[in-house]
Amino acid sequence: MNLPDPIKNFIHHISKLPSIGPRQATRLSFFVINSGKNEIKDIKKSFEELEKMNICEKCFFVFLPKNSSDKICEICSDGKRNHKIIAIVEKETDLISLENTNKFNGVYFIIGNLQKNGVLRTEQRNRLAKLKNIIQKELGGQADEIIIAMNPTTYGDFNASILAKELNDFSKKITRLGRGIPTGGEIEFADEETLGNAIERRM
Amino acid sequence: MNLPDPIKNFIHHISKLPSIGPRQATRLSFFVINSGKNEIKDIKKSFEELEKMNICEKCFFVFLPKNSSDKICEICSDGKRNHKIIAIVEKETDLISLENTNKFNGVYFIIGNLQKNGVLRTEQRNRLAKLKNIIQKELGGQADEIIIAMNPTTYGDFNASILAKELNDFSKKITRLGRGIPTGGEIEFADEETLGNAIERRM
Repeated sequence: MNLPDPIKNFIHHISKLPSIGPRQATRLSFFVINSGKNEIKDIKKSFEELEKMNICEKCFFVFLPKNSSDKICEICSDGKRNHKIIAIVEKETDLISLENTNKFNGVYFIIGNLQKNGVLRTEQRNRLAKLKNIIQKELGGQADEIIIAMNPTTYGDFNASILAKELNDFSKKITRLGRGIPTGGEIEFADEETLGNAIERRM
Repeated sequence: MNLPDPIKNFIHHISKLPSIGPRQATRLSFFVINSGKNEIKDIKKSFEELEKMNICEKCFFVFLPKNSSDKICEICSDGKRNHKIIAIVEKETDLISLENTNKFNGVYFIIGNLQKNGVLRTEQRNRLAKLKNIIQKELGGQADEIIIAMNPTTYGDFNASILAKELNDFSKKITRLGRGIPTGGEIEFADEETLGNAIERRM
């Protein structure tokens, strides 16, 4: 069955979004059409609103600029934070999770989703060059601490070690997130690796 | 961490869409912002295009009207199809799947997603009244066959039996989709219910 062009176009564009496949995009199109023109307007508006957002020139987090000249996000322009401690995260949602702990007063740097083969994409190379440049210019060549906050997975560890090597000369200390039993977890069910880390890094 | 309003609004609207939760909506917002303003325009456009689609007044399938006066979809206005055989489906994607078999020359009727408790919602009651009305006016009170094409699940069967009762006087014959081993399936792994149906309805 040949679907009408508006639906084909919709599926084409929407299935490019992360974790939306053509099948879900098809279902979405029918849902949206059945929701009526007002609902479509609301959705269009909510995408339009995203155009107001900027990407921070220092950390690559998104932010809502107060003036059109704003280039730096609120965290990066906050004088009360320690700009010599930098947490490198893969993505915005990781930054939000860390920020929500209220336990970190440094700044962030979003490197972007890393590949499983450990090769940095051009965009990530550029971002890394930018970070090094900031450390050179604003911190006199060395940060006090760079926390490489990757997921504690095989790929995460692999990528973290690559970043650690890259940034070795740019920080007095390079650290990673602590490992152990998650709060609420049970010793009996913790895997050996996790439990080993927990005993080694006991508090 | 307090997210900026454009992102909060986006999450609010987008997480109302089927099978998109707040977490996926959040990730989507960051993805879209990072994709840049051109990509946002494309997506907005693809939603806008959906406004061109109409919902067929007879079968409730969506269609692209050639003139603004078009109220009936291509299938319902196709004189070569048998309008006395009506397949009732829950949703548009079921219609597409059946149509793609190229084995059905009747028409369709979309009743909308049915609830698990077997109670028809107001919208579904209205649609059913519309179907009865069409059968009265256009088919002289009785269709030749109504195929109740619900999923072969407990809930699907339950809802199908409710619809069958409702439509009993409006069709000479009321049928359901055939059941058996799916093509490519193995007898060894078929459940008893399916295998029972396959032996009973052997071809």
